[in-house]
Amino acid sequence: MTRGKFITFEGGEGSGKSTQAGRLAARLREAGAEVVLTREPGGTPLGERVREVVLEAVPEPVTELLLFAAARAEHVAKVIRPALSHGTWVVSDRFMDSTRVYQGMLAGVSPGLIAAVEYESVRPTFPDLTLVLDLPPEVGVARAVQRGALSRFDAADNTYHLNLREAFLAVARSEPERCVVIDANRDADAIADDVWRAVDERLLAGVR
Amino acid sequence: MTRGKFITFEGGEGSGKSTQAGRLAARLREAGAEVVLTREPGGTPLGERVREVVLEAVPEPVTELLLFAAARAEHVAKVIRPALSHGTWVVSDRFMDSTRVYQGMLAGVSPGLIAAVEYESVRPTFPDLTLVLDLPPEVGVARAVQRGALSRFDAADNTYHLNLREAFLAVARSEPERCVVIDANRDADAIADDVWRAVDERLLAGVR
Repeated sequence: MTRGKFITFEGGEGSGKSTQAGRLAARLREAGAEVVLTREPGGTPLGERVREVVLEAVPEPVTELLLFAAARAEHVAKVIRPALSHGTWVVSDRFMDSTRVYQGMLAGVSPGLIAAVEYESVRPTFPDLTLVLDLPPEVGVARAVQRGALSRFDAADNTYHLNLREAFLAVARSEPERCVVIDANRDADAIADDVWRAVDERLLAGVR
Repeated sequence: MTRGKFITFEGGEGSGKSTQAGRLAARLREAGAEVVLTREPGGTPLGERVREVVLEAVPEPVTELLLFAAARAEHVAKVIRPALSHGTWVVSDRFMDSTRVYQGMLAGVSPGLIAAVEYESVRPTFPDLTLVLDLPPEVGVARAVQRGALSRFDAADNTYHLNLREAFLAVARSEPERCVVIDANRDADAIADDVWRAVDERLLAGVR
């Protein structure tokens, strides 16, 4: 059986990751694929508990890294890898790049530890395609406030959000064969079209 | 102010770690020291939550490593380090060597990841003294069963417990300047006397 493909959405708050992940999953299903739609932090019962723990406490950056990585290891081993090996596609709202960005580039946990933990918790199940939804921070923050989803991460200042945007773009630049940057400062239909184009070009072209 | 000393107890189930940690804390207090008595997994509200998560789920070995390390980073940053810097002594029932043994040597998580995670979650707050309570596995398991404390770890077979004992002894041999092995196959008073002798020789001799 052909292994499924693993697609992740990344980007700041209010960039439309959840909406686009849901739309992509629906479109893949219309195209005949089996799809698991999942998210991080979370994705497994253990991961959901870890998500609660992180939101309740104000952990040290290294604690947060290790908790998210622990949840990710479980997510990969119990959900993502089994699905892919059965030919199911997996679409995840956030994955390892969020750790690189939030705990690594922004909170300053050592790059060596970030890389070692990522490797051990994910390998060999790295995403086939990562869609980085990019938009000016003020637009994303305004959207997140509007829907009442302002989380701890949003409360920080504008510089933080500018750095966040730059960090996601830097990740995308560092792995162009895996990452596609999508302009998310448009309506959801236009974004979804670009998402589908990227999936089609990168993952479907070879199998038609 | 003089920095406090950091003492950890390690060893298999039923080796008397909790009892001896409590007795040492009491004796240090009688000698005039401020003492924080703590334990792992646990030690902070976040750590207690993580302990619950681990006991409820059957996590992958790497997940368990990362969860325990996350709790440890929090424990060190929020409890152990502040206490030591205020001159308080800290006595912990289990610490990093349990991770080296259970997740590393027994569950097979890569030594490189174990070491990297230990370094980042603990440094520079490594124990001044580690007391490894050693006894034949059948004695420790019988004690643990008797007090109804048979945990998931105890349910495994005898080979597992023999390997566990050897792993703790290997850790002690690898860092003789930090670790003292205590024969725990005796009554609690005799063990407590040896514990106190080790503390006296290693940590108090210099300050009298």
